[in-house]
Amino acid sequence: MHVNFTPGPSQLFYTVEGHSRQAYKHGIPSLSHRSKEFEGIYADVKSGLRQLLGIPEGFYIFFTGSATEIWERSVQNLVAKNSAHFVNGAFSKRYFEIAGQLGKTTFKVEAPLGSGFADSVSLPEQTELIALTHNETSTGVSLPLPYIHDFKSKYPEALIVVDAVSSLPYPDFDFNKIDSVFFSVQKGFGLPAGLGVWVVNEKCLSKAEKISKEGGSIGTYHSLPTLLANEKKNQTPETPNVLSIYLLGKVIEDMNRRGIQIIRKETEYKAAILYQALEANALAKPFVKEKAHRSQTVIVAECGEHTERISKELAKIGLFAGDGYGENKKTQLRFANFPTHSKEQFELLVDTLNAMTK
Amino acid sequence: MHVNFTPGPSQLFYTVEGHSRQAYKHGIPSLSHRSKEFEGIYADVKSGLRQLLGIPEGFYIFFTGSATEIWERSVQNLVAKNSAHFVNGAFSKRYFEIAGQLGKTTFKVEAPLGSGFADSVSLPEQTELIALTHNETSTGVSLPLPYIHDFKSKYPEALIVVDAVSSLPYPDFDFNKIDSVFFSVQKGFGLPAGLGVWVVNEKCLSKAEKISKEGGSIGTYHSLPTLLANEKKNQTPETPNVLSIYLLGKVIEDMNRRGIQIIRKETEYKAAILYQALEANALAKPFVKEKAHRSQTVIVAECGEHTERISKELAKIGLFAGDGYGENKKTQLRFANFPTHSKEQFELLVDTLNAMTK
Repeated sequence: MHVNFTPGPSQLFYTVEGHSRQAYKHGIPSLSHRSKEFEGIYADVKSGLRQLLGIPEGFYIFFTGSATEIWERSVQNLVAKNSAHFVNGAFSKRYFEIAGQLGKTTFKVEAPLGSGFADSVSLPEQTELIALTHNETSTGVSLPLPYIHDFKSKYPEALIVVDAVSSLPYPDFDFNKIDSVFFSVQKGFGLPAGLGVWVVNEKCLSKAEKISKEGGSIGTYHSLPTLLANEKKNQTPETPNVLSIYLLGKVIEDMNRRGIQIIRKETEYKAAILYQALEANALAKPFVKEKAHRSQTVIVAECGEHTERISKELAKIGLFAGDGYGENKKTQLRFANFPTHSKEQFELLVDTLNAMTK
Repeated sequence: MHVNFTPGPSQLFYTVEGHSRQAYKHGIPSLSHRSKEFEGIYADVKSGLRQLLGIPEGFYIFFTGSATEIWERSVQNLVAKNSAHFVNGAFSKRYFEIAGQLGKTTFKVEAPLGSGFADSVSLPEQTELIALTHNETSTGVSLPLPYIHDFKSKYPEALIVVDAVSSLPYPDFDFNKIDSVFFSVQKGFGLPAGLGVWVVNEKCLSKAEKISKEGGSIGTYHSLPTLLANEKKNQTPETPNVLSIYLLGKVIEDMNRRGIQIIRKETEYKAAILYQALEANALAKPFVKEKAHRSQTVIVAECGEHTERISKELAKIGLFAGDGYGENKKTQLRFANFPTHSKEQFELLVDTLNAMTK
């Protein structure tokens, strides 16, 4: 057994290697991105992802090189001057910093590592983009969905952009309450890294066009209007990672066959038994104290001086925990809970942790 | 037999599928880009590419999502105000347009499709970047190396940036005469698309830092200083296409084992027999008249009303020509001549063309 619990790049989705072989057999790695066949693959990803995540009409699905690229492109295309960022870890902080590097006036709402945000937060009136990291991969803190969905009525003029890099396909977003969401494929979708997926609505498109008309720079080949002009033909502006787009389509198909409801239920079951085991454990504790803020997809254990021992004990039976992030590298362990991680693997993980009582 | 002569994405390099299987076997598709193992892979690509292309000290090797991205990043990082572009086809034109979209003052030197440029061209004194497309993929026109190498002494203040997307690893650039060169992996290197490779020297780095210090925007995670800070650790700013970087390293290793001199000689042999066959053919002619401007790596045949017939005749025996580009789609055929295309395949192609005399 060899199970990779690192939250990303994580364990591959269990069908990926087989799909990759089929791809080579069918010439996908050298397929032209201007061919009918590629257009079919793009169309399949769009319809499959709409079904899986419940994405309604009026939203578009674009590809980029990474989610990091989407941090940059979203600020370029959606912010003329002012953005507001909810920062409670390394990744939400990086999104905030990128907005600053692009010369925007940035407003930061901060929470300590391992915590969620205060219920009532006031943002500047002129805020154009509210950047919310649904799942802070570095600490295992998740924003409750109602918290995310609440901004729309309070700030109807702002665009609500959600970084769901390490939580999708798990969260069931209400697309009436958000304007954009994005992820990269090497986390919950279990694919090789090298592709970002960016979902935006009409309001985002209009905003990009407005900024451009008023003389702002929205970039070139990956500006929203250019992405849209190509998407209408099921094409991309540049030669994209065709193989990865194909594999994404296949994995989405597999997930739809299983059903998103089952995937969500299993995710919650696996998270519940791991948090329970950590609560009861003498050597480790859940890092996130507030239950409502605990991530279902990246579970962080505070292990202190026992970190190395626990990690080694798990590795002995082929369970590879992810290190803690940054300053917590030597005192925490992170466990990805993605669709590819089975109930049986989590039960074994939990049994092994339960056996380590002192 | 199934040989793909489309100039990109083209036929995979013949070892790629095997390397991909090995990659899955060794966990490369889910390898962390912050691991020692990834750093080793990046280091291998750097040393292998230095050997293959003769890249000296003082040049750095970075990864992006595509060569299209490098068009944008190179203008952002290397041009405060003025760039000059040599435009003789769709791809050199796109580079020129991207500079305009980024708000730069662009100077264009134009040549008709299928032609090279006048020997003596005067550029504006304030030119900061001279953009040269070594091989215009849409028309099969190549700039002779002495033509490229000549700019340095005439314009010592400008940065010479060479788009070698569809010619590398064939051309033997003099790195004392250019400041930057870039390519994408789905052409001569025969890999699945989804990775750009950008080679820059210290002068490019200094220029980016100067623009940034003077308040210009050089982007964020893919600015040259950020790429360099990560490259020093053999890492990348974002989660990159790890699998593609691994495959690139393996293909470079294979090419070095064969030797760049042999690859160059074979490329010239294959180009020579195809041009000769086209010269002698009653139904087709080389599109590029001037021998000095004929590409060795993308050979374009003017086939007029015989285009479809020739294409079908070749397809019967498994030789798939690329369509002409854009307006020439129905009257031209394009033949990639990359390292993966064997002498035997070219000999068969030539024999088949020779047999079609009327």
